Amino acid sequence: MSSGRLIGVGVGPGDPELLTLKAMRALKEADVVAHFAKRGNGSNARAIIAGQLRSGIEELPLFYPLTTEVRKDDPLYRDAMREFYDAAAAAVAAHLDAGRSVAVICEGDPLFYGSYMHLHVRLAATYSTEIVAGVTGMSGCWSAAGMPIAQGDDVFTAIPGSLPEQELVRRLRETDAVVVMKLGRHLPKVRRALEQTGRLARAMYVERGTMPGAVVMPLVDKQDDCAPYFAVVLVPGWEQRR
Amino acid sequence: MSSGRLIGVGVGPGDPELLTLKAMRALKEADVVAHFAKRGNGSNARAIIAGQLRSGIEELPLFYPLTTEVRKDDPLYRDAMREFYDAAAAAVAAHLDAGRSVAVICEGDPLFYGSYMHLHVRLAATYSTEIVAGVTGMSGCWSAAGMPIAQGDDVFTAIPGSLPEQELVRRLRETDAVVVMKLGRHLPKVRRALEQTGRLARAMYVERGTMPGAVVMPLVDKQDDCAPYFAVVLVPGWEQRR
Repeated sequence: MSSGRLIGVGVGPGDPELLTLKAMRALKEADVVAHFAKRGNGSNARAIIAGQLRSGIEELPLFYPLTTEVRKDDPLYRDAMREFYDAAAAAVAAHLDAGRSVAVICEGDPLFYGSYMHLHVRLAATYSTEIVAGVTGMSGCWSAAGMPIAQGDDVFTAIPGSLPEQELVRRLRETDAVVVMKLGRHLPKVRRALEQTGRLARAMYVERGTMPGAVVMPLVDKQDDCAPYFAVVLVPGWEQRR
Repeated sequence: MSSGRLIGVGVGPGDPELLTLKAMRALKEADVVAHFAKRGNGSNARAIIAGQLRSGIEELPLFYPLTTEVRKDDPLYRDAMREFYDAAAAAVAAHLDAGRSVAVICEGDPLFYGSYMHLHVRLAATYSTEIVAGVTGMSGCWSAAGMPIAQGDDVFTAIPGSLPEQELVRRLRETDAVVVMKLGRHLPKVRRALEQTGRLARAMYVERGTMPGAVVMPLVDKQDDCAPYFAVVLVPGWEQRR
């Protein structure tokens, strides 16, 4: 092993105050701070820690390839993403080989649906690694909504909105508490599945939880079907409230 | 509404460095800091923030009733707990009515399987409340294990170890990533369910993730079936690693 160290740093759901002391220290001590971003778009993780970066710190932005013309289930998409993560891991490894510590910042928690994981699986066998756990986006959302999500012996499930409607229905019937993630264009389908399972009335819609401009409302009050990719729907378990 | 404020403060999974800046501020500003505990036992949440308490701060310990001789599915247990939470809410409300702010500290995240929720549902309609999201215990566990838990379109499920064996088997078959919580005496059954679903080889056992004396090992390497109540078993999704 080289003396370089790779640190996956969770920076939380959006509110910079939801950074942990450990994340602050990791950012202070790192030689290089890396983040994933779309070219031309701001990175949420980068915005969260903007006030914490040492002046003159070396940054390593890792820009996703442009894949707007390729569907996600197309093998070409998978190939493009694999090549991108290979190249990103190589760029990080070059710093590690030179003995530098590299903090990769991640919205939410690094090992829960985060891009950092793609670096981790490529580098953890060769380099010393550390994970700084973070507050997840979904915790930020149910906290912003003030919604107790799961209790006692509840089964809790996080499902992507991309599942087919009947699959959503089946899973909604099978679980006490649910977070439906990655809503985007799937919102009308998710709404129908909640309706069919009698759970629409208790569902909450949350956009940008803990961030400025957060939107929190009962899903039944949301008049349109426009939702950003990162919006979520929360359905609490714990029906028997006391 | 009175001018008192109720704040549910997530203090993270165990490592005091996983406190957020927001939790630190809430503890600094609160008039009263409350915590749940078993009489005679230390409180984990209280231990996590021990270094952060202002000297002379008013503390409100909320002691669970002694229920060791009553089974959890006995109505007597439910009654005892309901009465306890009613009394705890009344004790907190007395401070709120006097215009004080009360921070209730919670291991992990306040609204994810936390005792704080029982106060929240009793008080949130009457008093001004705020939630400070925290790093969950399960994030602490998979971070300590360095295990990427869920990615992309994975379905993620948290299930209690108390479920019957066939129910565990069915749920293990239905989900990509799993955290089995509240292991305790259920470990042998959980192990059998993992074996039956072909997922034992990838399961990780974690005790006290992020705390001193943390135990992290592949479940197949764990020779005995002794596990504390708060130990977890993690099974990663994302079978196709790249």
